[in-house]
Amino acid sequence: MGEEKDISFFSQRGGREINLKGSLVLPGFTDCHTHFTEYAVNKYYKYRLNIHESITFEELMELINEKAGIAPSGEWITGWGWNKNRWNNILPHKKYLDEISSRHPVALDSKDGHTLWCNSMALKIAGMDHPTGILFENEGRPVRDVIKKPSKEHYKECVKKAIKEAIASGLTGIHICEGAFEFNIYQELFRDGELNLRVTWHFPLDLLEEMISTQIKSGFGNEYIRIGCVKIFTDGSLGSASACMFENYEGVNHSGKLLIEEEELCNIVTKANKEGISCAIHAIGDKANNMVLNVYEQVGKFPGIRNRIEHSQILRPEDIKRFSENHIIASLQPIHIANDIPLAENYWGKRCSYAYPFASFLRNGVRVIFGSDVPVEDFNPFKGIYSASTRKYLNNNEKQSWYPGECINVEQSVQAYTVGAAYSSYEENIKGTIAPGNLADLIILDRNIFDIESEDILETSVKTTIISGKMIFEK
Amino acid sequence: MGEEKDISFFSQRGGREINLKGSLVLPGFTDCHTHFTEYAVNKYYKYRLNIHESITFEELMELINEKAGIAPSGEWITGWGWNKNRWNNILPHKKYLDEISSRHPVALDSKDGHTLWCNSMALKIAGMDHPTGILFENEGRPVRDVIKKPSKEHYKECVKKAIKEAIASGLTGIHICEGAFEFNIYQELFRDGELNLRVTWHFPLDLLEEMISTQIKSGFGNEYIRIGCVKIFTDGSLGSASACMFENYEGVNHSGKLLIEEEELCNIVTKANKEGISCAIHAIGDKANNMVLNVYEQVGKFPGIRNRIEHSQILRPEDIKRFSENHIIASLQPIHIANDIPLAENYWGKRCSYAYPFASFLRNGVRVIFGSDVPVEDFNPFKGIYSASTRKYLNNNEKQSWYPGECINVEQSVQAYTVGAAYSSYEENIKGTIAPGNLADLIILDRNIFDIESEDILETSVKTTIISGKMIFEK
Repeated sequence: MGEEKDISFFSQRGGREINLKGSLVLPGFTDCHTHFTEYAVNKYYKYRLNIHESITFEELMELINEKAGIAPSGEWITGWGWNKNRWNNILPHKKYLDEISSRHPVALDSKDGHTLWCNSMALKIAGMDHPTGILFENEGRPVRDVIKKPSKEHYKECVKKAIKEAIASGLTGIHICEGAFEFNIYQELFRDGELNLRVTWHFPLDLLEEMISTQIKSGFGNEYIRIGCVKIFTDGSLGSASACMFENYEGVNHSGKLLIEEEELCNIVTKANKEGISCAIHAIGDKANNMVLNVYEQVGKFPGIRNRIEHSQILRPEDIKRFSENHIIASLQPIHIANDIPLAENYWGKRCSYAYPFASFLRNGVRVIFGSDVPVEDFNPFKGIYSASTRKYLNNNEKQSWYPGECINVEQSVQAYTVGAAYSSYEENIKGTIAPGNLADLIILDRNIFDIESEDILETSVKTTIISGKMIFEK
Repeated sequence: MGEEKDISFFSQRGGREINLKGSLVLPGFTDCHTHFTEYAVNKYYKYRLNIHESITFEELMELINEKAGIAPSGEWITGWGWNKNRWNNILPHKKYLDEISSRHPVALDSKDGHTLWCNSMALKIAGMDHPTGILFENEGRPVRDVIKKPSKEHYKECVKKAIKEAIASGLTGIHICEGAFEFNIYQELFRDGELNLRVTWHFPLDLLEEMISTQIKSGFGNEYIRIGCVKIFTDGSLGSASACMFENYEGVNHSGKLLIEEEELCNIVTKANKEGISCAIHAIGDKANNMVLNVYEQVGKFPGIRNRIEHSQILRPEDIKRFSENHIIASLQPIHIANDIPLAENYWGKRCSYAYPFASFLRNGVRVIFGSDVPVEDFNPFKGIYSASTRKYLNNNEKQSWYPGECINVEQSVQAYTVGAAYSSYEENIKGTIAPGNLADLIILDRNIFDIESEDILETSVKTTIISGKMIFEK
């Protein structure tokens, strides 16, 4: 179990250590920000393409061809993840897809989600005529509206496979930001005794009124399904330079924009918090974060409320302590760093000294929780821990640490996946630590991550996952 | 503990008996049909009159006078329960109330809920002019709309007192048929650690859409607050001769009427059941019950659904077995018998041989659960057990049993309050029996109700109530 100090934070909370021949036993991890069903269907639905960003154009065509070979006529072939910037001199066009199939509608989302690449049959079904089949933003709406969703049973099969994978990665809980259709999937799995991963649900803003009408509040639920927050967006993303900043992006003449005004947000948060519903507000740029902090400050503290900011990727230094002053949870996805460093440098320049400021958050007493934003990034928590504790491009140990002063140590990273996560879902009395009376959610690792070279953290493998005292995964 | 057979149904289910010097230990009782908040506020809100049906006119005037003495000017004095048929030659009129107070608006509901008796100030606040202040049905709406509700804090205080009373009566759980405002009260008590009675919530039909939008399903929740059914009305009541019968009420030319058509009900039930929401349908007359059975039959069995009929007071004999054939729970309030016998005889005549047919239900393998319909009747479960096992007018032991063939024994009655109740709230694996692994919800009685004269059942007193292993009441 490494040195005594390594596990002291568990022991202090009544934790118990289990000595298993050099293995390390930890409380199960919770990924606090996922779009899990989307991930599950992307990965496991048989007519859905799982497009890795690094795929070549030829490989992608081959993949589509494969699906067309097995899919019955008329079946939609969909996918997500292509990035034309990776392809030299090839511009996506409907003709490439038409060459592969005129029997299947094909519609493929770009990695950033802003572009939909369709073949002629997909356009036809949507009643559209379009010269290239490359539909930007709302242009894609008519096609999206007619894409046939997999059946509920298909969804369940995909989700069950993804859950198995998550459990094997050391996760015993996940937070999901999705809608009521997806919520239903997990509830039916629970009803049928097939849900063995704990789920906290964050509802979209457009269900806030219904939550209030039925008085469904944050923290309500059972040990497998719990109501989380209402999720609200305030800006875009770093990748598309749409996160809202105080100053312009480097070298260009814009600074992103807010998707909602402060006053309106204030009304929404007040309304939700007053009714016992906590908020999880997406804010990436420093200005968006600043506005959300203003709002939380104005709204004040309602009983039972545990508000969060999702991502909090870049901040004005003076805003960091406002999280703790106002009891706001910072919900971060450290693995974003692995891919974002060049982008962040390029767009935010020197401002990056307060990007993903893990150490500053902790120094200021802020409650930090970790997640992955899967399917945007991999949900393997050891990649997250590595990212938070080393801050290296592509999680490549050869690279320099990026703003190493903001690295936190492995213990602190583990806390963000365990005790921090448990607090955010109102479960600090039953989860997040190894303690008598707590749910027995444990993972056994093949190495002591508190006492190894950082590069070895990436190789960590989970030997056993135990949920509610039941061994549900063993390598 | 009486003879062995007496407790065999607990033992068979893994129950354990505890011998406590002649006391009897039972699983805590659940009252499966209450309007608990209404009861709490009626009884405990300081400016609310708790009018017993047997009150004389003079006593009532005295009671109002008392409240007027303590209530600040302008405070509403409200109440429920007066019955002019009990008063010789006195017709209620606003003038009597005006004589007592012109400083307080006064509005008093009749026992049957159809008439509102107001003073001039109440009428004035509602912007009405009315010669007598006796408002029938919808006439009362403008006044009801302006009656100032007690504050949420007042509600909580009342509910806490009523909970204390329920626990002292041997209840460890209740089902509540009320709206979202009331639901909130219990959730806030739970949040603040002040809810020590288990609650199952039945939502009104007008929240069905919102339940579906958020995918809140029956059985969801924690060990203190659980989502029950959506409640739907199909007819009126025996007292007002508005329960819907196949044949006319005796001696008159009407048979009550359905409040909803079969087809519409079928659509609603299908919609709810499909989404995992069970239905609790109010049906009192034989025709209403028949229609609900038709509907449940047509809708069929959706996974996880546990539909109920509330009251099921009178049935065609051939309809009884349809409950078990279609897995429908019969939710009855045996204490209604104590007051209803003369009314039922008068209105239903010979048809009464299938009124409150407890024994027929059990003989046909129907799952029966018991409740009180509080505030309509007293929630003391021993009165319910006495009623079900003796069927005597006014629970008076001197009277003859009414259709004694439909009496059930004490064990069967206890089951309806325990194992039956637990099943109806999806908690048969944690409640309703004394068994290892179950919640430790127990009551200790001062006598062995399985082995005493029936009249002594009414005198039963609860010595101790234990919820979740914690002694929360001791005499």
